[in-house]
Amino acid sequence: MNRKRTSLLLLFSLAGAFLDAQSQDAGKSLSQKLGFPRDAKLLIVHADDVGMTHSVNAATIKALDTGLVNSASIMVPCPWFPEIADYAKSHPDIDFGLHLTLTSERVYYRWGPVAPKDKVPSLVDENGYFHHDWSPQTHIDPKDAEIELRAQIDRAYAMGIHPTHLDSHQYRLISSGKELFEVFLRVAHAYKLPFFVTHDWFAENPYLAPSLSFNDIVLDHTVTISTPVPREKWNDFYKTALRDIQPGVTEFVIHVAFADDEMKAATRERDTWGAAWRQRDFDFFTSQEFRRLLQEQNIRLVTWRQLASAVDQ
Amino acid sequence: MNRKRTSLLLLFSLAGAFLDAQSQDAGKSLSQKLGFPRDAKLLIVHADDVGMTHSVNAATIKALDTGLVNSASIMVPCPWFPEIADYAKSHPDIDFGLHLTLTSERVYYRWGPVAPKDKVPSLVDENGYFHHDWSPQTHIDPKDAEIELRAQIDRAYAMGIHPTHLDSHQYRLISSGKELFEVFLRVAHAYKLPFFVTHDWFAENPYLAPSLSFNDIVLDHTVTISTPVPREKWNDFYKTALRDIQPGVTEFVIHVAFADDEMKAATRERDTWGAAWRQRDFDFFTSQEFRRLLQEQNIRLVTWRQLASAVDQ
Repeated sequence: MNRKRTSLLLLFSLAGAFLDAQSQDAGKSLSQKLGFPRDAKLLIVHADDVGMTHSVNAATIKALDTGLVNSASIMVPCPWFPEIADYAKSHPDIDFGLHLTLTSERVYYRWGPVAPKDKVPSLVDENGYFHHDWSPQTHIDPKDAEIELRAQIDRAYAMGIHPTHLDSHQYRLISSGKELFEVFLRVAHAYKLPFFVTHDWFAENPYLAPSLSFNDIVLDHTVTISTPVPREKWNDFYKTALRDIQPGVTEFVIHVAFADDEMKAATRERDTWGAAWRQRDFDFFTSQEFRRLLQEQNIRLVTWRQLASAVDQ
Repeated sequence: MNRKRTSLLLLFSLAGAFLDAQSQDAGKSLSQKLGFPRDAKLLIVHADDVGMTHSVNAATIKALDTGLVNSASIMVPCPWFPEIADYAKSHPDIDFGLHLTLTSERVYYRWGPVAPKDKVPSLVDENGYFHHDWSPQTHIDPKDAEIELRAQIDRAYAMGIHPTHLDSHQYRLISSGKELFEVFLRVAHAYKLPFFVTHDWFAENPYLAPSLSFNDIVLDHTVTISTPVPREKWNDFYKTALRDIQPGVTEFVIHVAFADDEMKAATRERDTWGAAWRQRDFDFFTSQEFRRLLQEQNIRLVTWRQLASAVDQ
C-alpha cells in the first residue's frame, strides 16, 4: 500500500511538473523556445526556387557554403529537381524545405504538375503546364491542389529529401483565400512539417490566424525585396532592413542565381525575379558586408530545423 | 455526242498520262524525285535534340543561321520546348521536325511524358519521369507509346509548330522491335508526316522494310559519330565521311550545343553526347572547312520539306 501511494504521489507530481512546463512554454516567445532571450534578433536567410534551373541550384549551393544563406526551399516539379535532390541526399544537414509550386510563371521555360495532369485539371493550361498566372477567372479546385501538393512531397521523400519545412511558391497558398490555405495546412499537418507563415501577413489575409492551430510555428516577421527597389538601391534596401530588424524570428526571402546564359534566357521576358535580380541577391548575401552587418547588429542565424525541434520539445 | 466523245477521249488520254507519270515516278530514285540526277550527292545536315536545354536551342539556332545545318528536330516533352516552339512559330520556313521522345537519359536533369502519367504507365519510372534507359525487363506497352507520341505531336501543333518530319530520339522506335516501329509508322501516317528511316538500317532490323508502304520516303544513307571516335579525330571522321559520301540522299545526324555551365551540368555523369561532344559538332558543322568540303565534293543540301513536297507531287 505504501509503495502504491508513493508511486501515485510521484505520478501526480510528475504530471504537475509536466503541465507547469507546458503552461510556461505556452507563454514563451518563439525566440525563447529556441533558447534565446525574448529580445534576441534571429534571422533565417532563405533562398527560394531551388531546382528551377541549374543556375539557381549552383548559386544556392555556393551561397549555402558561405553559411550566410542558411536555409532554402526546393521546387519539386522543376526540371533541375533531380540535381538538387541528389545534393540534398548527400548533404542531409542542410536546411532544405519544399517550395510547393502550382504555377509556371515564365514563358520560354516551363514545368507542369507531378501528379498526372488528368487528375489535377484545374491546375494546368491547355498545353499541360501549370498556369502561367492565376486570374480571377482561374478556378483552382482545392482537391486538385491537395493531390498535387501531396505528389510533390511524396516525390521529394522518394528521391531522398527529408524536408525541414514547407513554403509556397509565389505565396499562392497564402494569399489565394481560406480554402487553399487550409489545403496547405492540412497537408503540412499530415506530413508533420512546419510551414512558413508570419504575423506580418495576418492583417491582409484575415483567414490565416483563425485557421492556425495552437502548435503551429508562426514567424514574427518577413522581409523580401520587390519591384519598386531600383538596382542601384539594392544593397541599401537590405542594409536598412538589417538595421531595422525587430526582436523575434524574421525570415529574409531571397532569390539567388547566376546571371548566366541559361538564367537570362529563362527569365528574359521580364526583369522581375530575373537573372540580374537574382545575381544581385547572390552578391549581397554572400558578401563580407552582409557578414559584418549581421555581427554589428548582433543578429543570429537560425534554421527551420532548429525551429521544428524547439517546438517539438 | 461529238462533244461527249471528245471529252471521253480527253479523259482517257489524261488518265493515261497520269498513270504513265506515276510509273515513271515509281522508277525514279529519291534524288530524281527531288529534281537532281541519280548520281547527285544530296545531304541533310540534321541537328537532333532541340528543346532539350537552352544551350541546345541557342546552338541550333546559330547553326541553322549559317545555312550549313539545314534541318533539326524538336523534343516536345523537354523543359525548353516552349522557347524553341516560339522560335519555330516565328520562323516557319525552317525545316523543323519532331524528335519523338520516350526516354529521359540524363541523371541530374529530367523530363516526363506529355500525356498524363497514369495513361502511359509503362513509359515512366517510379518518380514519374521517362525511364532513364530500357532494359530487356522494361516492358513498353505499344498502346502507351502511341498515346504519348500523339500527345507530343498534338502539343507541337497546338503551340504553333508545323513539323516537316518525324524522327525518334535514340532511335528507340526503330530498334526496339516491330511493334514499336509500327506505332511510329501508324502515327506518322495518321498525321501525314514523313519520318526518318534509311536503307542502312534494313539489314539489322529486318522488320523495317516489310512494314513500310510504297509511298514512304526511305533515305539512302545516314552517318552519325559515335563513342569509338576520340575527340582529336572528330573532324577527320566527318571529313572522311564527306569524301566517302555516296550518291543518293544521306542524313548526317549531329548533336549541337555550347559547352556552357548548363550543358556541362546536364550531361556531367558521362561524356557521350555530353557538352564537349556537342560543342565539337557545333564547331565542325558551322566551320568554313565544312562549307569548303561541301563545295569540293559537290554535295548539295536538301531538307525534309523538299523531300515531302517532291514525293507528294
